[in-house]
Amino acid sequence: MTADDAFRPEARAPRGFVDKRARDLAAERAILQAVSKVYESWGFEAFDTGAFEYADALGKFLPDSDRPNEGVFALQDDDEQWMALRYDLTAPLARFAAQSWEGLPKPFRRYAYGPVWRNEKPGPGRFREFVQCDADTVGSARPEADAEMVAMAAAGLEAAGLPRGAYVLKINSRKLLDGLLAQTGVSDSRQKLTVLRAVDKLDRLGWEGVKDLLGDGRLDESGAFTKGAGLDVAGREAIGEFIDVSTRKTGVLAAMAELNLGAIGEEGLRDLELIEAVLNGLGLAADQARFDPSVVRGLEYYTGAVFEAELLLETTDEKGEPVRFGSVGGGGRYDDLVARFTGQSTPATGFSFGVSRLAAALRAAGRGSADARGPVVVIAFDQARMADYFALAGELRAAGVPAEVYLGTSGMKAQMKYADRRLSPAAVMIGEDELAQGTVTIKDLDLGRELARGLSDNKAWREGRPGQVTVPRAELIATVRAILEPAP
Amino acid sequence: MTADDAFRPEARAPRGFVDKRARDLAAERAILQAVSKVYESWGFEAFDTGAFEYADALGKFLPDSDRPNEGVFALQDDDEQWMALRYDLTAPLARFAAQSWEGLPKPFRRYAYGPVWRNEKPGPGRFREFVQCDADTVGSARPEADAEMVAMAAAGLEAAGLPRGAYVLKINSRKLLDGLLAQTGVSDSRQKLTVLRAVDKLDRLGWEGVKDLLGDGRLDESGAFTKGAGLDVAGREAIGEFIDVSTRKTGVLAAMAELNLGAIGEEGLRDLELIEAVLNGLGLAADQARFDPSVVRGLEYYTGAVFEAELLLETTDEKGEPVRFGSVGGGGRYDDLVARFTGQSTPATGFSFGVSRLAAALRAAGRGSADARGPVVVIAFDQARMADYFALAGELRAAGVPAEVYLGTSGMKAQMKYADRRLSPAAVMIGEDELAQGTVTIKDLDLGRELARGLSDNKAWREGRPGQVTVPRAELIATVRAILEPAP
Repeated sequence: MTADDAFRPEARAPRGFVDKRARDLAAERAILQAVSKVYESWGFEAFDTGAFEYADALGKFLPDSDRPNEGVFALQDDDEQWMALRYDLTAPLARFAAQSWEGLPKPFRRYAYGPVWRNEKPGPGRFREFVQCDADTVGSARPEADAEMVAMAAAGLEAAGLPRGAYVLKINSRKLLDGLLAQTGVSDSRQKLTVLRAVDKLDRLGWEGVKDLLGDGRLDESGAFTKGAGLDVAGREAIGEFIDVSTRKTGVLAAMAELNLGAIGEEGLRDLELIEAVLNGLGLAADQARFDPSVVRGLEYYTGAVFEAELLLETTDEKGEPVRFGSVGGGGRYDDLVARFTGQSTPATGFSFGVSRLAAALRAAGRGSADARGPVVVIAFDQARMADYFALAGELRAAGVPAEVYLGTSGMKAQMKYADRRLSPAAVMIGEDELAQGTVTIKDLDLGRELARGLSDNKAWREGRPGQVTVPRAELIATVRAILEPAP
Repeated sequence: MTADDAFRPEARAPRGFVDKRARDLAAERAILQAVSKVYESWGFEAFDTGAFEYADALGKFLPDSDRPNEGVFALQDDDEQWMALRYDLTAPLARFAAQSWEGLPKPFRRYAYGPVWRNEKPGPGRFREFVQCDADTVGSARPEADAEMVAMAAAGLEAAGLPRGAYVLKINSRKLLDGLLAQTGVSDSRQKLTVLRAVDKLDRLGWEGVKDLLGDGRLDESGAFTKGAGLDVAGREAIGEFIDVSTRKTGVLAAMAELNLGAIGEEGLRDLELIEAVLNGLGLAADQARFDPSVVRGLEYYTGAVFEAELLLETTDEKGEPVRFGSVGGGGRYDDLVARFTGQSTPATGFSFGVSRLAAALRAAGRGSADARGPVVVIAFDQARMADYFALAGELRAAGVPAEVYLGTSGMKAQMKYADRRLSPAAVMIGEDELAQGTVTIKDLDLGRELARGLSDNKAWREGRPGQVTVPRAELIATVRAILEPAP
């Protein structure tokens, strides 16, 4: 069989999965490192689980044989058990905590980062694999554990490069709305979810739209009908009043206390007061974290405090249009997740960053990583001299300067172009003359790029930054360093 | 439905997948950071791909509908295309290089790390998910590119914590054996593979066993018959002579040059000489990297130089038995992998570390990470004082000392036990007395553990390291630091 007869697969990645080059990876790694350091300084230990969990342990998405891939990537193991790739980092933690509870220090505090997978329709900015970075405390019902999540999220965002004022942590408690719903006679969990989803659409539909969704239902412009929660007038009015108080600019918590939220709601208010006290004790101001009763969070499992990290940066997309990044993370209290396994209620709270999303936001805000610098490139003139070139590159590396020998087969011009495309600071040449005289010739590629962009002019030559110099071999390192860190 | 009626999944991870705690993660991350830094200093750029590839792009394991999971974790996408989790980091690189070749700097040099997945039978020390860390150069046929892989692997092992003498990089070229086989009339690729597999069993079966496998076949002790490669006597003798030269202690390369290895074999010898010249130029000695013709490497796709990183450390297992870790990485030249997509031969070479394996080896050799230290724990006496405790913990963190407030509900003794289990250096107490007097009480938990292990004695108290002190609040940081970094 010759090569031409062979089957040739098309070289392409599956939809919703991306190849990441150096600049994007540097941005993600910088965030993970900064946030991990914050989590560790708060006493959270590093922890990781495998990519797969048994599907029944993931719970929310139990695959059935007709649609095994509903929402997750699932497959059957050799023993016929369904496994699925984790869709977040919390479900594997709940499984681990249930499995290992006896042997763990309590509360168990861990942070984790890594890819998660969702089998959803990919689209622009919408991937089927993305990186999360979470901290969770399992085994503490204290609102102070929630407060800590908020304070860490603020510290993490600032460590990642967001200045104060560029983000805000919004805090709410599900107990307020739960208390209100109990007072309005909503007890069925399905009805409750319909109400929460309706309230979550306030931004998009306004109060009139939400009111329809709380009542019999809503007919949208396309003619599609969404069935409502079926609340009576009094119920809808109570929720309307709640939303009204929620959207005030000031005194929200005090006004909430005047509403009839029942015992559950009052518990929620007490929680929020304790959270506020800790945040004050830690010196967080209202521009960093504040109560916002409009925060609901879509997931069904939150049982108390909920948090949302929202970016306030003004950014623009490729067309120059202003873009709101919105949420880059969130979390809350989920007291029932471990109980799924054990039957024992185990209070837990956590916060999750969307790392790829945060990286994109930082980049759009001009605070992302710069393009990755290339190494110094040692030009390869002569096959017989390769060992000399390698020794030279080794000398640079030993001095802490990344360096490589060009290993293609092209000529001088292509080698320079290669070094330039790699964003190398300099190319180093040792031809016959240099070898004979114990010198090296160094071409300043940074300067070349600056000239090409119009950032420098011929003054540079006059003021002691020549485009190319030949120096004694002993001056190699110093000369390259001068290019890497030009005098101001 | 009450909690007791609910379905309770068993909390367990799928077989072959492990939960990693802080110590193991610290070890892996230290290796990845050290090796990445080496790769970057040699001019390799960071790169990553998604977890999934289309199964046809992975090539080796084309799933059929009967056994879609043969060797890999595969599933069908919504559009019926088979996808599989990557089983190494090289196949996705080949796909990417084929897809993006036009726009890449050439040679394309990248490093990558991350989990890979193999759907194989798990066992002790044998996982279905593990971490690899690779460097590859695509687009260079130069043996110097191979030499670089070997030199980087040595630098990477030393950066990861292995001293010289604890490892060796073994180098061979597939062209030597290929040349020999061509001379002995083996041209069929299946027959060639049978020969390579037979030679690979020299350690286990000895020459007599290998000779049978090269000829008609071999009957093992259990009565199982393995069909042989079908070589005639002359062919077997030529291979025997080759192995004989291979296993000499000195002068192997020179003796090889005396054998009849044909044009291909002579090319291999020239490659090895060029590799040796570069390694000499870089100052690598024979205890770091050396020619070893017994290295074959199992994978079918190597076409030239092959490398193996072998640990020479004496280690013992849990039963005190000596353990040989053997290989912790390897690689070689694979000139046909990109051509699968493009039909154009694209020379490539690379090296891959088994990171989890290397971490295990370093640990067994007593060079692994220490147990992860816990934070300073601020004891929680009084619910009404939580904000004070948080302020205190914040003060420690601001000084660079990891700290947390105990967030459980247990009493003093359990809180101390918690701090001790977390391997916290100290516990900090501010009760009513301390608050009234502006002091803090600090308990030295490190000392407590040392005493418990018999490492210190009562001398410590006499010599100025008391188990517990009460100091003015302003001396908090200095007192904790003295515990973290005790004077020698």
